[in-house]
Amino acid sequence: MLAEIIAVGSEMLTPHRQDTNSLYLTAGLNDLGVSVAFKTIVGDNRKHLTAAIRIALNRSDIVLLSGGLGPTEDDLTRECVGEALQLELRRDETLLQSLAQRFAARNMAMPANNARQADVLAGATILPNTNGSAPGQWLDTTFEGFRKLVILLPGPPKELKPLFDNDCKARLAATLPANHLARRMLRMALIPESQVDARTAPIYQQFPDVETTILAGHAEIQLHFLCVKPTLAEAEARVDAVLDLVAAEMGDDIFSFNGESLEEVVLLMLGVRNHTLSVAESCTGGWLGERLTAVPNSSRVFLGGAIAYSDRSKTALADVPAYLLEEHGAVSEPVARALAEGIRRRTGSTLGLSVTGIAGPAIARGPDAAKPVGLVYIALTDGEDTQVRQLHITGDRERVRLWCTQHALEMLRHFLQ
Amino acid sequence: MLAEIIAVGSEMLTPHRQDTNSLYLTAGLNDLGVSVAFKTIVGDNRKHLTAAIRIALNRSDIVLLSGGLGPTEDDLTRECVGEALQLELRRDETLLQSLAQRFAARNMAMPANNARQADVLAGATILPNTNGSAPGQWLDTTFEGFRKLVILLPGPPKELKPLFDNDCKARLAATLPANHLARRMLRMALIPESQVDARTAPIYQQFPDVETTILAGHAEIQLHFLCVKPTLAEAEARVDAVLDLVAAEMGDDIFSFNGESLEEVVLLMLGVRNHTLSVAESCTGGWLGERLTAVPNSSRVFLGGAIAYSDRSKTALADVPAYLLEEHGAVSEPVARALAEGIRRRTGSTLGLSVTGIAGPAIARGPDAAKPVGLVYIALTDGEDTQVRQLHITGDRERVRLWCTQHALEMLRHFLQ
Repeated sequence: MLAEIIAVGSEMLTPHRQDTNSLYLTAGLNDLGVSVAFKTIVGDNRKHLTAAIRIALNRSDIVLLSGGLGPTEDDLTRECVGEALQLELRRDETLLQSLAQRFAARNMAMPANNARQADVLAGATILPNTNGSAPGQWLDTTFEGFRKLVILLPGPPKELKPLFDNDCKARLAATLPANHLARRMLRMALIPESQVDARTAPIYQQFPDVETTILAGHAEIQLHFLCVKPTLAEAEARVDAVLDLVAAEMGDDIFSFNGESLEEVVLLMLGVRNHTLSVAESCTGGWLGERLTAVPNSSRVFLGGAIAYSDRSKTALADVPAYLLEEHGAVSEPVARALAEGIRRRTGSTLGLSVTGIAGPAIARGPDAAKPVGLVYIALTDGEDTQVRQLHITGDRERVRLWCTQHALEMLRHFLQ
Repeated sequence: MLAEIIAVGSEMLTPHRQDTNSLYLTAGLNDLGVSVAFKTIVGDNRKHLTAAIRIALNRSDIVLLSGGLGPTEDDLTRECVGEALQLELRRDETLLQSLAQRFAARNMAMPANNARQADVLAGATILPNTNGSAPGQWLDTTFEGFRKLVILLPGPPKELKPLFDNDCKARLAATLPANHLARRMLRMALIPESQVDARTAPIYQQFPDVETTILAGHAEIQLHFLCVKPTLAEAEARVDAVLDLVAAEMGDDIFSFNGESLEEVVLLMLGVRNHTLSVAESCTGGWLGERLTAVPNSSRVFLGGAIAYSDRSKTALADVPAYLLEEHGAVSEPVARALAEGIRRRTGSTLGLSVTGIAGPAIARGPDAAKPVGLVYIALTDGEDTQVRQLHITGDRERVRLWCTQHALEMLRHFLQ
């Protein structure tokens, strides 16, 4: 069973916009044991779109189209699918009335063009769209003697996603051979992809029926395992088997077995250990706080902190003694230590975490002038002991800053374990 | 002249990875006056790829392929282009030697498979790759009697981009009719896309030879203007004409005419006006500081601030009197004012900017319990006057927090103007 996704819209043929719906649709199709063999992106052009649909019908069993269902002259998906399959469009009176009601509810007259959104392909099932005006359509049909499923979905993700989940997945499952899928995921920070691959490939290669994907990015490695079997128990047994062996190999480097982010894991552990946290950030300028506070309910354990960007703010907000800054420079072991200890005392948290470093590209001034870009100190204190780590992070400003936040969260996670 | 981009690689048919090279290639092709009509994404599958290349040769004049030039059995682009065009592959001795040298330089033996990277299509020009082992190939050929340009590029962006820029653009320009392109861009924050479109469409529609694109996202609207003419002067005159009229219509809502980000504009204006800034962030938890410090040299005007997430940290770091928090709650006009004024005094900056609000989804406690999610106060002080704005921001936690940072930066920008 091969699927093809056609994303319709001229904006996705510019340098500015990309089709992202297909990632969501691919995950859903994979869950049903269906692979995506082709993706096509085509503009709002009748000739191009009709030809692309014919090509898809020729080479794929399931064709999903996203976009081109709006009310304007440019929205051609209905017409082009009809032309490719030689099916007529009929205006559906019930749909027309509900469209008119949408406009009436807003005290607006419905523009004549909008009636096109009530056009339905002969034989299609209407998939009602509760988040927009364009309904989806489901066609179980034949093309040149072969059975084909053709699914028309609206382009806006907040309309497409619920329509696909609620109206298409169960229909697809009922049509396809029974398959059960199990997925697992491991997340690791800071470790190089090549090292993860070298250590885990001898394990996952013994599981040819488990699809293993290693993804690297954002200072993190993800290992995805996926297995499709006739029963769920079989599929789960296989992914769990490979996961257990990989987990034993990678040990503490794994921060998440269930998909949680590093900040979620750390916040959870702080709660379990009855700790509260404050931060003092120099080169990261608030990014560590931003990551932690992006998680709902982080206020239970995260108290806040200092964006200690200037020397004066280090003193004024985290009580770093001025002589330390003068003697050692802001990027130094003693200042990292003083920042963590100072912010902990100031906010009354049980733990204090600090980051100070040279993110570049500008050369630092004063006592830090001779220090290289990428030199970073991270300190963590619980009021009794203070650990300080010196790091050398390569890359540009954004990478140095991101890796600083990642190292700081990992230092905290290892402390809490 | 129609172009098609084929991205080759099974990983781009998973839910995890997306083709991004095509955005870069599209921008480059557009610069030469060439539109992209189709994008195809296909896996490392000989039958699928060969068929996709034939389809592209049928419908497009220029076919760019990215990926599939590596040394492994899965890397099939050379073979499949050869099959589609019925061209032979010949092993190039010079390439083979330079591949062997690459390995020798690292004291490694070259695996036999790697010799495949020296295979060149009959009639192709080799495009040397200084950033990797797989060279590109340029074919000026015919398919069923029509002239076709077929360009094979390596998949890794850091190899593809310089190869395309240095070895393909000039060749393409020499092949295509002479065209000159001018681009302009305007950026606006906070204003709804529909309002921008309603106000500017009557203007840009008078310029049918200028391609206008409105992009909305990340609490920002971008207006892109693009014009292709036989001379650069003509193209520039047209984009400048539409830009001037749109700028007059949108006025102060425009924060950038040259592509700078809102934080870059604000930092620049702070420097020009001899101001320094500090921030006190409650619900944004450091995001405002993160955005400002992402810009190199922001330390010249940005001094730092407080992540005033808990009540105690508001008092300890920004001197907010405890009775204000008790009487009015943390999300209130008096607390926003006290945060801005307190952080300004504490850090010695000339301006203080604060954000406090309810980002949700959890219900706030204490004196804030009855306040709705999305209620936000932003305050800006210069030590003499303090302005406070009350806002109601809709959407989820991430949207409320992003729009808070955007409103705060816009408030500062308008003050500095």
